[in-house]
Amino acid sequence: MESSAMRETTEIAHQLAWIAVDWGSSNLRAWGLDQHDKVIAQASSDKGMLSLKADEYEAELLRLVSDWLPTNAPTKVLVCGMAGARQGWLEAAYLPVPTRLDQLSQGAVTPGLAGSQLHIYLLPGLSQTHSATAHFDVMRGEETQLAGLVADTPDFSGLACLPGTHAKWATLEAGAVTQFTTYLTGELYKLLARQSVLQHSIGSDDLNDAACRDAFVTAVSESYEAPETFSSRLFGVRAQDLLDGRLPTGKMRGAVLAARLSGLAIGLELAGACREPSSQAPITLIGNQALCQRYTLALNAIGFQTRHVDGDEAVLAGLRLAHHALKA
Amino acid sequence: MESSAMRETTEIAHQLAWIAVDWGSSNLRAWGLDQHDKVIAQASSDKGMLSLKADEYEAELLRLVSDWLPTNAPTKVLVCGMAGARQGWLEAAYLPVPTRLDQLSQGAVTPGLAGSQLHIYLLPGLSQTHSATAHFDVMRGEETQLAGLVADTPDFSGLACLPGTHAKWATLEAGAVTQFTTYLTGELYKLLARQSVLQHSIGSDDLNDAACRDAFVTAVSESYEAPETFSSRLFGVRAQDLLDGRLPTGKMRGAVLAARLSGLAIGLELAGACREPSSQAPITLIGNQALCQRYTLALNAIGFQTRHVDGDEAVLAGLRLAHHALKA
Repeated sequence: MESSAMRETTEIAHQLAWIAVDWGSSNLRAWGLDQHDKVIAQASSDKGMLSLKADEYEAELLRLVSDWLPTNAPTKVLVCGMAGARQGWLEAAYLPVPTRLDQLSQGAVTPGLAGSQLHIYLLPGLSQTHSATAHFDVMRGEETQLAGLVADTPDFSGLACLPGTHAKWATLEAGAVTQFTTYLTGELYKLLARQSVLQHSIGSDDLNDAACRDAFVTAVSESYEAPETFSSRLFGVRAQDLLDGRLPTGKMRGAVLAARLSGLAIGLELAGACREPSSQAPITLIGNQALCQRYTLALNAIGFQTRHVDGDEAVLAGLRLAHHALKA
Repeated sequence: MESSAMRETTEIAHQLAWIAVDWGSSNLRAWGLDQHDKVIAQASSDKGMLSLKADEYEAELLRLVSDWLPTNAPTKVLVCGMAGARQGWLEAAYLPVPTRLDQLSQGAVTPGLAGSQLHIYLLPGLSQTHSATAHFDVMRGEETQLAGLVADTPDFSGLACLPGTHAKWATLEAGAVTQFTTYLTGELYKLLARQSVLQHSIGSDDLNDAACRDAFVTAVSESYEAPETFSSRLFGVRAQDLLDGRLPTGKMRGAVLAARLSGLAIGLELAGACREPSSQAPITLIGNQALCQRYTLALNAIGFQTRHVDGDEAVLAGLRLAHHALKA
């Protein structure tokens, strides 16, 4: 206890019960929580999985949270995301769907850290294997955001969408993920906007602008109703820039064409993700506000209702649920 | 005539009647033809439109063909392709469809070159503007290959496809292009294979290999029958690499996944280009043999017949037709 006594125990350390971490490919965020699961400290860094070797994770985490730690016992740390990937800290093998979201912690793994102040639990991702249809899919990190949906409603059922670089759509039935599908939407948009023949036509859109909004919504409907035209409508954006005398000039031209490209990409996703409006229940969008507003505009245009859950709140709720399950 | 006599007149120069040039974005090819339209000389360079300023075209062409030129009069040179683009030598404005392919030379423009040994005709491209449906499209170079189809059959009707980075599909009716559509297929494939999350999974395919051919044909059918799944099947290629125990190992793994990606991209194009097998006439594929064989495999798999026309022969036939029209 000598060495511990040397360190000043902070106010946070007196209250800290456990630590929640969302460790992605390009950054990590850590929250310190008290025994009532209230956030009492926060930290983040840009050291994601892509910039760390397996033996560098502990030091990076300690760099962020060592001031929070009590001295009397190791602190539990629940980690979701790419830290649990094969190329991360230690592999937490994918759980195959269907999986109940309140049981993610059953697949957690713990790196052996002799004498560490941290007791780490790396949560698993989810996998899907339908060999017959060649429908393979994986997620890692999003499952914990989905778990946030069942934290208050253990038997939650419904369709959830997490927009982004690799947008995830998951079907939840009575608290379990029964199937999910990843769409390359965000990555497709970026590649086309920045590195294709379209790069000279595409600017930055602003969906608060009526012309951008119109272009976006029209493009969503076109892709949704005729997904087979996607690849030709992409080239059409370039041709429109060359030929369409009705397009605005200056900065608005690139903005309108960016909105159109975004609408084409999202509309293609929606064509695959929600063909059958089988239920009147709203689709749950999980993520940041701007992107979820974009998806709401798109989904409303094709007749679906949505509700929005903040991405940070969802992942924290999911990590809390996993922490409770560990204790149980 | 003094200065002309100083130059040795070559055998080619005695026979040369005119010069045909296909001047693309990244290279140019020139053919010297005699009065019977027989090729008697060939030259090429990598100085395409992208690497030349407007005032550099004549010198580059002379560098290749000056030895061919007779001394008694300027030589007619018919040029198709990007040299006629706005950012090329001199803009030959797009002709709007419908356009008869034997009348391309009516849209040709001639750069003013005082005292030049060359009399240049830059052929126009084609444009399409359906404002109501936002279907804008352009081609520049491919129209001359299409003109090759009507050189022998002035009233040719049928569906033609020119595979490539920007694949073109054109409907020909009685010797005229009535509508056409560009698909970003080749560019999509390259972006996804080299710069997306798929890049670590994709190798080089070989459609002579049965496993590659099966993966290709299966993927073509999947995209063709369910184009709305395109974006999710892309991510599925990555997930399959992670999860599918039945995939081969080593080099064949990347080859099979490359074949699958190629099939998904081409299948999406075919879903847009040939939904309705309204006619039993074969689809005419214009281009190099390997790519046209790939498209034949794809089209046969979904029930269409094809015939192949070599791309070089097509462009030369189209330039011959334009040359005859100029003389008429």
